[in-house]
Amino acid sequence: MNARLTPGRVLASGERLAAESARLASYGWMRGTSGNLSEVVGRDPLRLAVTASGLDKADLAPSDVAIVDAGGAQVAVEGVHAVRPSAEAGLHARVAAVTGAGAVVHVHALSAVLAGRRWPGGVRVRDVEMLKGIGRAARGDEVVFPVIPSGQDMGEMGDRFEAARDPRVPALLVAGHGLYAWGEDLVRARHVTECVEWLLAYALAVA
Amino acid sequence: MNARLTPGRVLASGERLAAESARLASYGWMRGTSGNLSEVVGRDPLRLAVTASGLDKADLAPSDVAIVDAGGAQVAVEGVHAVRPSAEAGLHARVAAVTGAGAVVHVHALSAVLAGRRWPGGVRVRDVEMLKGIGRAARGDEVVFPVIPSGQDMGEMGDRFEAARDPRVPALLVAGHGLYAWGEDLVRARHVTECVEWLLAYALAVA
Amino acid sequence: MNARLTPGRVLASGERLAAESARLASYGWMRGTSGNLSEVVGRDPLRLAVTASGLDKADLAPSDVAIVDAGGAQVAVEGVHAVRPSAEAGLHARVAAVTGAGAVVHVHALSAVLAGRRWPGGVRVRDVEMLKGIGRAARGDEVVFPVIPSGQDMGEMGDRFEAARDPRVPALLVAGHGLYAWGEDLVRARHVTECVEWLLAYALAVA
Amino acid sequence: MNARLTPGRVLASGERLAAESARLASYGWMRGTSGNLSEVVGRDPLRLAVTASGLDKADLAPSDVAIVDAGGAQVAVEGVHAVRPSAEAGLHARVAAVTGAGAVVHVHALSAVLAGRRWPGGVRVRDVEMLKGIGRAARGDEVVFPVIPSGQDMGEMGDRFEAARDPRVPALLVAGHGLYAWGEDLVRARHVTECVEWLLAYALAVA
Repeated sequence: MNARLTPGRVLASGERLAAESARLASYGWMRGTSGNLSEVVGRDPLRLAVTASGLDKADLAPSDVAIVDAGGAQVAVEGVHAVRPSAEAGLHARVAAVTGAGAVVHVHALSAVLAGRRWPGGVRVRDVEMLKGIGRAARGDEVVFPVIPSGQDMGEMGDRFEAARDPRVPALLVAGHGLYAWGEDLVRARHVTECVEWLLAYALAVA
Repeated sequence: MNARLTPGRVLASGERLAAESARLASYGWMRGTSGNLSEVVGRDPLRLAVTASGLDKADLAPSDVAIVDAGGAQVAVEGVHAVRPSAEAGLHARVAAVTGAGAVVHVHALSAVLAGRRWPGGVRVRDVEMLKGIGRAARGDEVVFPVIPSGQDMGEMGDRFEAARDPRVPALLVAGHGLYAWGEDLVRARHVTECVEWLLAYALAVA
Repeated sequence: MNARLTPGRVLASGERLAAESARLASYGWMRGTSGNLSEVVGRDPLRLAVTASGLDKADLAPSDVAIVDAGGAQVAVEGVHAVRPSAEAGLHARVAAVTGAGAVVHVHALSAVLAGRRWPGGVRVRDVEMLKGIGRAARGDEVVFPVIPSGQDMGEMGDRFEAARDPRVPALLVAGHGLYAWGEDLVRARHVTECVEWLLAYALAVA
Repeated sequence: MNARLTPGRVLASGERLAAESARLASYGWMRGTSGNLSEVVGRDPLRLAVTASGLDKADLAPSDVAIVDAGGAQVAVEGVHAVRPSAEAGLHARVAAVTGAGAVVHVHALSAVLAGRRWPGGVRVRDVEMLKGIGRAARGDEVVFPVIPSGQDMGEMGDRFEAARDPRVPALLVAGHGLYAWGEDLVRARHVTECVEWLLAYALAVA
């Protein structure tokens, strides 16, 4: 994970980011140009490949990717044309640093915004099989999805995340905003996102 | 923008209109042959390329496009086979003239009709990140989507639009009818449409 | 319309039926093997091409088509392999005979079943632009979609249709069952189906 | 059905499982890596081909298939690379053994979980045409979908299934979990799944 970043590695990451973005966009969770995805491409120092800002997540090209450091600041890679990373890259990097996740997904799923508004102190779900999809037990295991206030300062958002986080919960709701979810790689992060969205829709339906 | 309209430029515009129409139709917002899209192809005098009337918006060909003037009247272009423009082209042209937008989208999304019926004096939304997708602030910035009565006279509709319009809001709800949204180009107009529809669904869900 | 039925004409009709079936199935309105589509292929005597019974409407081949007469009974065509027509072909034929429609669509859209149950005396809709999609006025024109009880005898169903029908309404709801809609050709019949389904969803949402 | 299992037969089964899984995943009923499908490939002794555990059901390859016995235990097939079968394979096998079904589908459709929670004693549906899609009468025939508690022991789950089962109902709801449905082959099992899901959504909507 500390191998030198080459244009080929960056493009390979961009290709994976584009594929998973397109899938999530097809669910209606990335309307406009909302949401962003990232993948850890180096740990020492931390480097993430993150989707470019302001583009349609259904139509990304492999080159629509930027490399950022642990603070979310763009890092130049020789031979790679610079594109502007998402402003939220700093929170992706914090999540990756704190949790050890290999990939982070952020979407504007309506159910996440509705659940975060209804339960600003955290969304509680228990006794449903889909919890196994995020590594928890299907019965007798109450999961509380943390909810933090939204903001534009990613350092502050990262601090809120660390304060609210439960190490056993691979997701974070941002009130009036959307959902973050993560996993060991991009496919796993998408799967966690799908399961969390299902669980939030379930929580809203039975409330 | 005052270059002479050639068949090639008209077809290129028709191709972009067909692509964005197909995407919006796939969301279920253009049932039957409802809705229409337009793109400004000349400013002095104003000329818009607008989708043909009465066709399936999921299946448009690049040639399913008409050129209209500032009043929505069809303008002949040498070498281009004339197709009937949408009857609503006049309102598209007015929106483009008044706002300076480069493209306008009109869809019959159910959420727009439901929101316009529930809040005939305007749909208020605030404190949600998706507002950034239409150029507004995520917090502390109340957005009011104007709602105007529907009608068949596009000149009158245009006057209602001008009277109701807030220059900071790139969208208009027409009661018992649907949604107009616009942007600097067609992709941006579609993105605005997606964000506004999300915001209206959100407003309905939390009401 | 009284030209001799050739295998080529039957297959051409089957191809159109397959394409429109696939589109309607993609909306979730033809779950399992439910629903069926037909197209008039002769008027004197009346002949309809109708989708085969018991097949997945998302995956029809052009040869998955049967020819039926005015009573819904199968008619052999030289050179065409016989497939079993839908049991509901008799109601399709009656609709085509009575209304002069060139094509009929029958789907099991949930909104149609819910609306028929809520308003067994007919579903009233007015003052919404989507009514223009079924040939009615956008304002001041109350449309009543007739609802008839369901049954397995297509002759009896046809009588109920004739008794309930409003010549200005190109659709019929069958209680506890689904929706019929029609038009001059298959594409128009699908468009009418889409508009009616939207109108029923709207009626349910504002009730 | 007692022919020797060859790699070719296993891969052919895996190809069918992949195709039907992809269709069901496209409906949003297999979020994350949830759900699994199986097909009987031998009766004496009972052998099922079942989808591999932990994979995305939208993206299965024909080789993402395992062979299990009547207890759900993996059976090696010469020339076939072993993949881990779903942990729920034992319940699939029990359903196939008890009902004689040729294929079993298990999905995490939200409507199934909501209906099972609302009616833990069984979900009653009657007088709706879609019941014909699961082999029941459209009128005057009350269908009760059995609901059993969830669990991780597939032998115990199988016993609950046998105790709760109505031989005329080709589906089983597992509370807080999801839906099982079956049929003579995979396509039929998918069709039954589609019809049952529609019926559960209907039951919830009219409750």
